[in-house]
Amino acid sequence: MASDIVRNPNALAEALAETSRVVEAQLDALLPVPEGAEARVVEAMRYAVLNGGKRMRAFLVMETAQLFTVNRTCAARVAAAVEMLHAYSLVHDDLPAMDDDDLRRGMPSCHKQFDEATAILAGDALQTRAFEVLAEEDTHADAEARCELVLALAHASGARGMVGGQMIDMASEGKKLSGPEITRLQALKTGRLIQFSAEAGAILGRASQPQRHFIAAYGRDLGGAFQIYDDVLDETASAEELGKTAGKDAAQGKATMVSVLGLEQAKAHAELLAEQAAGYLESFGERGALLQELARFTVTRKS
Amino acid sequence: MASDIVRNPNALAEALAETSRVVEAQLDALLPVPEGAEARVVEAMRYAVLNGGKRMRAFLVMETAQLFTVNRTCAARVAAAVEMLHAYSLVHDDLPAMDDDDLRRGMPSCHKQFDEATAILAGDALQTRAFEVLAEEDTHADAEARCELVLALAHASGARGMVGGQMIDMASEGKKLSGPEITRLQALKTGRLIQFSAEAGAILGRASQPQRHFIAAYGRDLGGAFQIYDDVLDETASAEELGKTAGKDAAQGKATMVSVLGLEQAKAHAELLAEQAAGYLESFGERGALLQELARFTVTRKS
Repeated sequence: MASDIVRNPNALAEALAETSRVVEAQLDALLPVPEGAEARVVEAMRYAVLNGGKRMRAFLVMETAQLFTVNRTCAARVAAAVEMLHAYSLVHDDLPAMDDDDLRRGMPSCHKQFDEATAILAGDALQTRAFEVLAEEDTHADAEARCELVLALAHASGARGMVGGQMIDMASEGKKLSGPEITRLQALKTGRLIQFSAEAGAILGRASQPQRHFIAAYGRDLGGAFQIYDDVLDETASAEELGKTAGKDAAQGKATMVSVLGLEQAKAHAELLAEQAAGYLESFGERGALLQELARFTVTRKS
Repeated sequence: MASDIVRNPNALAEALAETSRVVEAQLDALLPVPEGAEARVVEAMRYAVLNGGKRMRAFLVMETAQLFTVNRTCAARVAAAVEMLHAYSLVHDDLPAMDDDDLRRGMPSCHKQFDEATAILAGDALQTRAFEVLAEEDTHADAEARCELVLALAHASGARGMVGGQMIDMASEGKKLSGPEITRLQALKTGRLIQFSAEAGAILGRASQPQRHFIAAYGRDLGGAFQIYDDVLDETASAEELGKTAGKDAAQGKATMVSVLGLEQAKAHAELLAEQAAGYLESFGERGALLQELARFTVTRKS
């Protein structure tokens, strides 16, 4: 797969770092701090989203967009919107009433750094701003494409997507889920947004239906690999490597693929999905090489 | 004003009831309960939004839409989206970390009826669904108008609108705000969404710039009258009439116009704003009569 194609072994790391720079500059510009007491909620939004995440979702948007030669500023705005939506979900997931997590990427989570009310509001406003950025004319796409982005993001993140997955996750604590049930939970909770990130570039690029199909399939299997490997890391990595509490899923009795398949089988399943994901991009040739490399990286990373 | 024009003294009450029926049928159709454990979050969304509210925001959408002869189903969908956005804000405002309110319209608030995690997720998903409905093709407007609605709603509800106002409100507890500071807080916290509701009909109807200007001014002053009169009711009405804890703002040391102006002056100010609001609609003649009547009702209601 990609390792045959990418000559520079650091190409992915460099591309991820470059995406981080571009997207963080966009986020900084898209979230100016206003005058007045409402500044506090914007500071909390900035804290939550400008925190040195891996920017995998942003990278997916930017890289699939370049497959279709989309304007780079346009892609960066959509990438920033996805990172805002993702950050909102993390801020709300970390709340005491939800996963009650004090740490996020090695730093105090938003409600610890600010307070619960501010964190609730910051999450709310990050979601709002994500949809706003997609719909803005500055997003250089025509109104049809902008509406399609709003719809696709809403579908990926609402009650039948990410929030639905989070609800199932909360409702299943302490229950024993089957493999298919866990797969569905994970597809909703994290898979849909990862798939959206890949598809966004195709929407912006007015990709053909077959191209859309392959990109969606890549995003779906990449998302599956990512989540299963997250479960693996939760079992095997240290808190220092993860930047968050390790072994927490098991301690909370949360259903993971590791609990169903065992560590080795779960790892093998994640690797298979990553390989499949990369395979869907063969038809894009050299231009898809970094996306293929990302799939491989997803199941070899340390955090 | 409107009382000269509306012959049937029950016309407003009947029109409000008819809007409620139409919008609740839309909400019911737009929020089908899925199979699986994620059903719980949709049940909480339905509980929060299908609760017999006054539907003033929905009425504003439907009535301004009829000024411009907009398709009624189209207007009803946008009205339903505004009610979802409003319901999300109430669900999150009622949370223990925010206003900590156990009652909403005489019923247990969402986190009391379900639980905190479910209420956070239901609010999140109501916001998502509101933007989704605006962007959907079923909303019978062209993509430009749908994008414009998404943008206007995001502007009204994000960190520089409703959420910003809520942040100022939280940050000001126990502090003494001046009249202008309270006016700004209330304009952000509740005024912007009321103004959006009025403008949505004009956006759908592709109203001319002068018409947009008058509708926006009507919405702005109606929103001001509404919020100041809410402060008056919080002082004077009983919990039974309000369906929520009475006298709570004063007890929490929240800044209200009543605390700055005194009860009589605050009432007079609300009435003046309502009169001004009605005045902006003179050019629409008989078709604007119910909207004028709504302005008068806003400052005479009991709850």
